[in-house]
Amino acid sequence: MELTPFLQRDGSLPLYVQVYEYIKLEIEQGRLPEGTRLPSIRRLSEHLSVSKNTIEAAYQQLVAEGYVGSKAKSGMHVLSQEELSTASQTAPPVEEEREPSTYAYDFQYGDLDLEHFPYRQWKQCLQKALETGGAEVLLYGNRQGDRGLREEIAKHVLQARGVSCLPEQVVICAGTQQAITFLCQLLELAGQPVAMEDPGYDGVRTVLLQQGCLLQPVAIEDDGISMAELSQSAAKAVYITPSHQFPCGAVLPIQKRMKLLQWAYNTNSFIVEDDYDSEFRYQGQPIPALKALDTGERVIYLGTFSKSFLPAARVSYVILPPILLTRYKKHFQNQSQSASPLIQRALYLFMKEGSFSRHVRRMRKLYQAKHRALLTAIEAYMGERVRVIGQRAGLHLLLEVAGGQSGELVRRAETAGVKVYEPKKYWADPDACPPGLVILGFGGLREEDITEGIRILAEAWACVK
Amino acid sequence: MELTPFLQRDGSLPLYVQVYEYIKLEIEQGRLPEGTRLPSIRRLSEHLSVSKNTIEAAYQQLVAEGYVGSKAKSGMHVLSQEELSTASQTAPPVEEEREPSTYAYDFQYGDLDLEHFPYRQWKQCLQKALETGGAEVLLYGNRQGDRGLREEIAKHVLQARGVSCLPEQVVICAGTQQAITFLCQLLELAGQPVAMEDPGYDGVRTVLLQQGCLLQPVAIEDDGISMAELSQSAAKAVYITPSHQFPCGAVLPIQKRMKLLQWAYNTNSFIVEDDYDSEFRYQGQPIPALKALDTGERVIYLGTFSKSFLPAARVSYVILPPILLTRYKKHFQNQSQSASPLIQRALYLFMKEGSFSRHVRRMRKLYQAKHRALLTAIEAYMGERVRVIGQRAGLHLLLEVAGGQSGELVRRAETAGVKVYEPKKYWADPDACPPGLVILGFGGLREEDITEGIRILAEAWACVK
Repeated sequence: MELTPFLQRDGSLPLYVQVYEYIKLEIEQGRLPEGTRLPSIRRLSEHLSVSKNTIEAAYQQLVAEGYVGSKAKSGMHVLSQEELSTASQTAPPVEEEREPSTYAYDFQYGDLDLEHFPYRQWKQCLQKALETGGAEVLLYGNRQGDRGLREEIAKHVLQARGVSCLPEQVVICAGTQQAITFLCQLLELAGQPVAMEDPGYDGVRTVLLQQGCLLQPVAIEDDGISMAELSQSAAKAVYITPSHQFPCGAVLPIQKRMKLLQWAYNTNSFIVEDDYDSEFRYQGQPIPALKALDTGERVIYLGTFSKSFLPAARVSYVILPPILLTRYKKHFQNQSQSASPLIQRALYLFMKEGSFSRHVRRMRKLYQAKHRALLTAIEAYMGERVRVIGQRAGLHLLLEVAGGQSGELVRRAETAGVKVYEPKKYWADPDACPPGLVILGFGGLREEDITEGIRILAEAWACVK
Repeated sequence: MELTPFLQRDGSLPLYVQVYEYIKLEIEQGRLPEGTRLPSIRRLSEHLSVSKNTIEAAYQQLVAEGYVGSKAKSGMHVLSQEELSTASQTAPPVEEEREPSTYAYDFQYGDLDLEHFPYRQWKQCLQKALETGGAEVLLYGNRQGDRGLREEIAKHVLQARGVSCLPEQVVICAGTQQAITFLCQLLELAGQPVAMEDPGYDGVRTVLLQQGCLLQPVAIEDDGISMAELSQSAAKAVYITPSHQFPCGAVLPIQKRMKLLQWAYNTNSFIVEDDYDSEFRYQGQPIPALKALDTGERVIYLGTFSKSFLPAARVSYVILPPILLTRYKKHFQNQSQSASPLIQRALYLFMKEGSFSRHVRRMRKLYQAKHRALLTAIEAYMGERVRVIGQRAGLHLLLEVAGGQSGELVRRAETAGVKVYEPKKYWADPDACPPGLVILGFGGLREEDITEGIRILAEAWACVK
């Protein structure tokens, strides 16, 4: 057997990688069939005039990736393509948690409209941040977050959400889950009872549990969180989505907002208000944030750019009441900022020049049209057979299919080429999820695809009684 | 008083922001002196033909930022510039933790050489990632981290550090502290004894404490961590920097490496190996990672791009032994990735095209020259009065000044225009830090500045006996 790769010695790629990739390709394309013994390290290193280390490194990589097996005495031999995935006893399963969707219509919650993403402006902001930002955007950056970005966020929440704060109160975080981790540490919630809406956002529930909180699920009533249950919970903090309850979509009415605040003031508890998708409201006036009513410094406001702009920015923000700032300064002097300073600066420029608010206005119109298409199609094709839950805002809604079972509905939809999702993971006890519910995200689909997807769903579910 | 801003109604900037910025500027430039009463909301809204909400929002922002005070009955009035910082009782202190250095020579650890940063290539990688990455780099991205980046990291650690792993074992994190937080959760270390080197990296100590670990500081002996102390600690895990002990700079010798591994195998404990600056070694051969010796799946390898490339990428990585993968898959299905998918993809492209390894080679030469300049200057100007600790690698060293006290040395240096740092925060008990130690980071300084800085330091410290 002759192994003679053409090795480029200009340093562009390490020699061992060239040897490794050459042999890998030979195996993949069948030119080195199963069982072929590879030359010894010494022989191949002489043959190719490279060091033995080079060959050894290449062989190690081939073994690590399961192309080649190593047997005592008989040396290296090529494994069969079928064996590849089970070549090593300890090799972990090769999996990717989300392959590109194979469904013609995927109602995945969290997908956004990417066709209208402002590539050009965002690219310019990234470039400008890199070119003009200096050390501040290349090194670790401000621990609390880019100063300019915090100023823009303070302006934005005042204008859009009625929340008045100083940039000193804004702490940038790398996504909502990282923000919750931070708050668990700041409020020292490990071992403490912490309430959250049930059903509620499972990603936050996971973090609260991992941070050692004693989770107190509190039922959602027709008008939002049960104050009776919350009062009995002895919770030191409550996580809540008052502007658009996730996943059920209700708005917490003003009476309950006042009761909730009073509860926090009376018990010295904190309210973590997650205002995740407040930008997208299609009916009625915008609802001011709960934080805007907070006169007692008990509401911690949580915002994100993942719905309004770009999940890949991985930028969220926490607005701390002044009462918590001393504790924050004392205990978090030693914590690096996790969100990229480069991205933060680009986002600052994007907001500063007005592109962000333009983008939000534009997307609101687009999502409103998609939302309308979704409701129209549901009405037209499904009519009385379904009930729509939480249709006033946001990028998703729940559908209750009379007589259906979530699992069965999802499977039938898949068979017909449409992906919808079971919402039971949002319940603290998944079995408590009412039957016949599915969650539909519509942000990433075109209007015509929404309509067609719903038509197919209606057909696929037609036999449900 | 006449307030007549020129309002642009083209929507580029919200009206309230224009009003707010106009009044703010008037105050800052003294045209609205202290005590001036602002017109009522109603009057100004009529005067400017804008809604009352607009004026109210502008006023709120001015109050929030302390430009304007609000008194019952007498309305809004301008506060004095002196009052600004104390305008609100609850207003947090206006502070930024790191202003641009005012010192001519700042030996800050963590600073890197930015003059030779590959702006052009990095910009191209960012652009290409944005243009070609699609949904994967715009939405939330792969939870474990960009697949291509994990493949490149697997190649890199094999080639550079002798660590053999599959991309499935690599978990991308947003910096070292976030990686340690993740590992505390994965290994369920809350309430468990966890050992770390003393002195050691304070940023990790902070996280371990915040995550509820029972911290077990283990003394550093001349040849690295004390195995006797570690064995007595009952630790479930140990955090260690074997290739370049932080901050003392020692390399853990092979005998201790084997003992450390044996300890982990015997006690079923885990070793967290932080290989933070292994790229920069100036004397002798590269030391393979401890992980490369680990036959028992007990070493968790931790790498970062913060020293070798770009702190602002906020990308680090953890290499898990296969034994931990099932637990990882089970418990972290619901955790979003914190590092920006866009940055991750750009980093993947940067590595794939060979720019990363070229950059590291180039920086190694540059830092070696700086390092030589530093040692030469210390020898020339300070001679016998100081002892250099940990000079074989990395981007910092410790200086022990005979007869000196760290605090006094730092103050004298400051007076002379040179910033050096006290290392006592790296000790679990800061009082245990030996007197006369200072830490010098040299990554961000030019060779000539290093030489001049040391000359000035020698003068400033001349009277120290």
